[in-house]
Amino acid sequence: MNKTEQENGERDMSKNKAPKTAITPRRDEDYPEWYQNVIKEADMAEMSHVRGCMVIKPWGYGIWEKFQSALDGKIKETGHDNAYFPLFIPLSFLEKEASHVEGFAKECAVVTHHRLVEKDGSLVPTGELEEPLVVRPTSETIIGRSFAKWVQSYRDLPLLINQWANVVRWEMRPRIFLRTTEFLWQEGHTAHSTRDEAMTETLTMLEAYRWFAEEKLAIPVIVGEKTPAERFPGAENTYCIEAIMQDCKALQAGTSHYLGQNFAKAFEIRFLNQDGVLEHAYTTSWGVSSRMIGAMIMVHGDDDGLRLPPRIAPRQVVIIPVLNKPEQEQDVLAYADAVATDIAKQTYDGQPVRVLVDKRDMRSVEKKWQWVKRGVPIRMELGLRDFEAGTVFMQRRDQAGEKMTPARDEVAAMIPGLLDEIQGNYFDQAKAFMKANTYYDITDFKTFTDFFTPKNAEKPEIHGGFAVCKWCEDPACEAKAAEMNVTIRCIPKDQRGDAGVCVICGKPATTDAVFAKAY
Amino acid sequence: MNKTEQENGERDMSKNKAPKTAITPRRDEDYPEWYQNVIKEADMAEMSHVRGCMVIKPWGYGIWEKFQSALDGKIKETGHDNAYFPLFIPLSFLEKEASHVEGFAKECAVVTHHRLVEKDGSLVPTGELEEPLVVRPTSETIIGRSFAKWVQSYRDLPLLINQWANVVRWEMRPRIFLRTTEFLWQEGHTAHSTRDEAMTETLTMLEAYRWFAEEKLAIPVIVGEKTPAERFPGAENTYCIEAIMQDCKALQAGTSHYLGQNFAKAFEIRFLNQDGVLEHAYTTSWGVSSRMIGAMIMVHGDDDGLRLPPRIAPRQVVIIPVLNKPEQEQDVLAYADAVATDIAKQTYDGQPVRVLVDKRDMRSVEKKWQWVKRGVPIRMELGLRDFEAGTVFMQRRDQAGEKMTPARDEVAAMIPGLLDEIQGNYFDQAKAFMKANTYYDITDFKTFTDFFTPKNAEKPEIHGGFAVCKWCEDPACEAKAAEMNVTIRCIPKDQRGDAGVCVICGKPATTDAVFAKAY
Repeated sequence: MNKTEQENGERDMSKNKAPKTAITPRRDEDYPEWYQNVIKEADMAEMSHVRGCMVIKPWGYGIWEKFQSALDGKIKETGHDNAYFPLFIPLSFLEKEASHVEGFAKECAVVTHHRLVEKDGSLVPTGELEEPLVVRPTSETIIGRSFAKWVQSYRDLPLLINQWANVVRWEMRPRIFLRTTEFLWQEGHTAHSTRDEAMTETLTMLEAYRWFAEEKLAIPVIVGEKTPAERFPGAENTYCIEAIMQDCKALQAGTSHYLGQNFAKAFEIRFLNQDGVLEHAYTTSWGVSSRMIGAMIMVHGDDDGLRLPPRIAPRQVVIIPVLNKPEQEQDVLAYADAVATDIAKQTYDGQPVRVLVDKRDMRSVEKKWQWVKRGVPIRMELGLRDFEAGTVFMQRRDQAGEKMTPARDEVAAMIPGLLDEIQGNYFDQAKAFMKANTYYDITDFKTFTDFFTPKNAEKPEIHGGFAVCKWCEDPACEAKAAEMNVTIRCIPKDQRGDAGVCVICGKPATTDAVFAKAY
Repeated sequence: MNKTEQENGERDMSKNKAPKTAITPRRDEDYPEWYQNVIKEADMAEMSHVRGCMVIKPWGYGIWEKFQSALDGKIKETGHDNAYFPLFIPLSFLEKEASHVEGFAKECAVVTHHRLVEKDGSLVPTGELEEPLVVRPTSETIIGRSFAKWVQSYRDLPLLINQWANVVRWEMRPRIFLRTTEFLWQEGHTAHSTRDEAMTETLTMLEAYRWFAEEKLAIPVIVGEKTPAERFPGAENTYCIEAIMQDCKALQAGTSHYLGQNFAKAFEIRFLNQDGVLEHAYTTSWGVSSRMIGAMIMVHGDDDGLRLPPRIAPRQVVIIPVLNKPEQEQDVLAYADAVATDIAKQTYDGQPVRVLVDKRDMRSVEKKWQWVKRGVPIRMELGLRDFEAGTVFMQRRDQAGEKMTPARDEVAAMIPGLLDEIQGNYFDQAKAFMKANTYYDITDFKTFTDFFTPKNAEKPEIHGGFAVCKWCEDPACEAKAAEMNVTIRCIPKDQRGDAGVCVICGKPATTDAVFAKAY
């Protein structure tokens, strides 16, 4: 292979001024702006004309579909069935669980009318509802009402249900994928005959989320429990997985709630136990959302755009035919198709490898950078010389600049191994980043404050991290940290078990807590 | 095999009075009630506590998932990408296309507030929106607005998008699966640079729907075009597939709309053509919904409940271990599992056969009838005698009462063929029913009126059918038929081409129209 940098389009992003990276600004210049631009340049999604709501474009939705199918498999494997419940929740349902309604009242879209009439040339709502309906912010209440009907005896338990749905929480400061008024998610809802069984379920799904984040999205996470202040409204315990973004802020990537008998009492989910005594059931709920796509962008993205873990990439291999002379087009296209056919016969992660030959009428260098920015794990550029030499020019998204030119007969068989390497690399890189930015040695409030103060950092955009500190469990100390926008992300499952002092107040403390700024 | 009727639980539905069919009333006694009870007994869905909205239970949702995956494959194969657009539509968007808003204004759920506050002990909406939002009844307007942004030049066309979503149309008289305030569907939306290309797209998707109905759901359909009175609000042409239910009423099973430049003009979807001239695009939209599950029930169900076409059945084979003596349980369960393992290795319709061993703690006769009512294509009951004889006791849902006892080593390989036979049988039966109830010889108004009058029928619940008659194309004649609740379902694609007289007014007419009562 003898391609020049120019031919391969290395960094040749425009005719005039070549920027140094495909995404501007870079992460270390303006992280939030970088994030927006990665999404824009990858053509994943955009904010819509409806305030706070996004449009998920085909590339973004393709990622969501892979995401869904991987997680759905796990949810079914663990014994749950999918079902579907109404979008609307009567106000009276929401009122039944006091802390639940308090948690969601401030962000509910409310339907008050059921038709429109023309009046003075414009449309106005009419047909006022007797009882307003809330667009579901989450479905514990509406599903609780159904469970109460379905559960009569211990034989009806456990009831293991999941729902894939859109939910609405009115956002005053929307951010694409991270906080939008409408978002997509799955919400599991289960009912059990004993506390132990419900708690086991809660932790089983927490582990399912850890598995999903780490094995499929290549996002390493800390597993732990939320403090009482950070619990889901109505839960007795909220468990979570927390990930670290490249600006060192935390992002809650999934939660699993043990709801005790709170919702069972509010909705009368009762069963006759084996002794013939009527008892309230024990329930759980757990969810992850399209927000996790935001996490994936922020964990793996680089200054050239998105980097997709192969297991979640809508296309794992993209082949760009390089067509310089019309008379050679046939040969080159046929060559690209033949290579693609071989690759599609390979299997990775239990599925045929997803390969695309990009035949659009567009300069190949433009195509190349489009696929770089979209994060496709493996790109191939095939021109006449490759065809004649019987080789394949190939680049990995995790190795900027490096090139491979395997023989055409060998390339297909290499793909599954390469995809697995890339998947592993992303995880290892993210894991190393998390390790490098998790601090165990912050023991006093002064150091703690300095650590979380941007002006002390070399790169203010990227500072702080996970501070694993002792905490006395006093909510007042938690509130004091919150004054500088630092929250306890979780009480990690892995506790050191030693004695120390609360990083906020200095009193004796043994509990480890993960402090961080968060999305 | 020497099982008695009693052992097999033939019709033994209760300890006291054995009803003659698993579903009461029978179809010919009370068809609407039969329909409700099939859904109830198959545990598919139920009306929720929210007026007009349904809960789709696991068995019903499992059918929806198979439905989705089959249709989604076709949608992608025909070049479309999935995406997701907001649930909410600003009132001003809806107003832009006059006939569109007229068509939907009477059934829109309107969001007017974005939070709740407590007042005198109960919650009231607050935070009034400046512009009310409609919960999407369909998404032409909101998607049109995005398309306007995305399309600049002919190079951006065609734009081929599909969305799987929930939509809301306020229903005053809801019927489960058939008319519910919220329902699930897919809606395709495309934009093209020429009228011809858009029309081709419209008809391609109409054909995709015919294929889906006939090949996957085993529902034969008539393909045709709606009259102007029955068009989608804002469309220039609406095409449809129409199916006949067992009470001889029609059900519209899918529609594909050629929208001309109506929405392109309303939303300014414009492109620079190859000559550098700015033009409005030509758009289409097309959809099928969870309503089609209602059609499937009404086309294939019998007096014992649901009959699922194998290609859409969440479980194609269910094995019921018959455990009479505790000491033999191990052997029988192991036998059932081994048979299931073999069956799961078989492939039908491009996927592994979906088999379940039902190990629930429940009488096997109860289980049997549950699976009959749920419409599982093949049931097996395996007891000790089967294990010892090395045979499998098997029944097909399409052959009530008939039994098969193939050898255990041969049964797995038989399954794909049997499933295909059952799929074919359902289609053939439905096709024969449609043929038997399609009348070409009604040429005068008196006969027409008699045909559609229940009191003239032997079984008032089941009467009428498809009357393929001549129509003069005068809307007044269409309106006259509508007075007796008879509508023109479509102008069928297959026209006889002969001359005759309008069945309503008696004037000369050549156009064939399919008249029917409809859901």
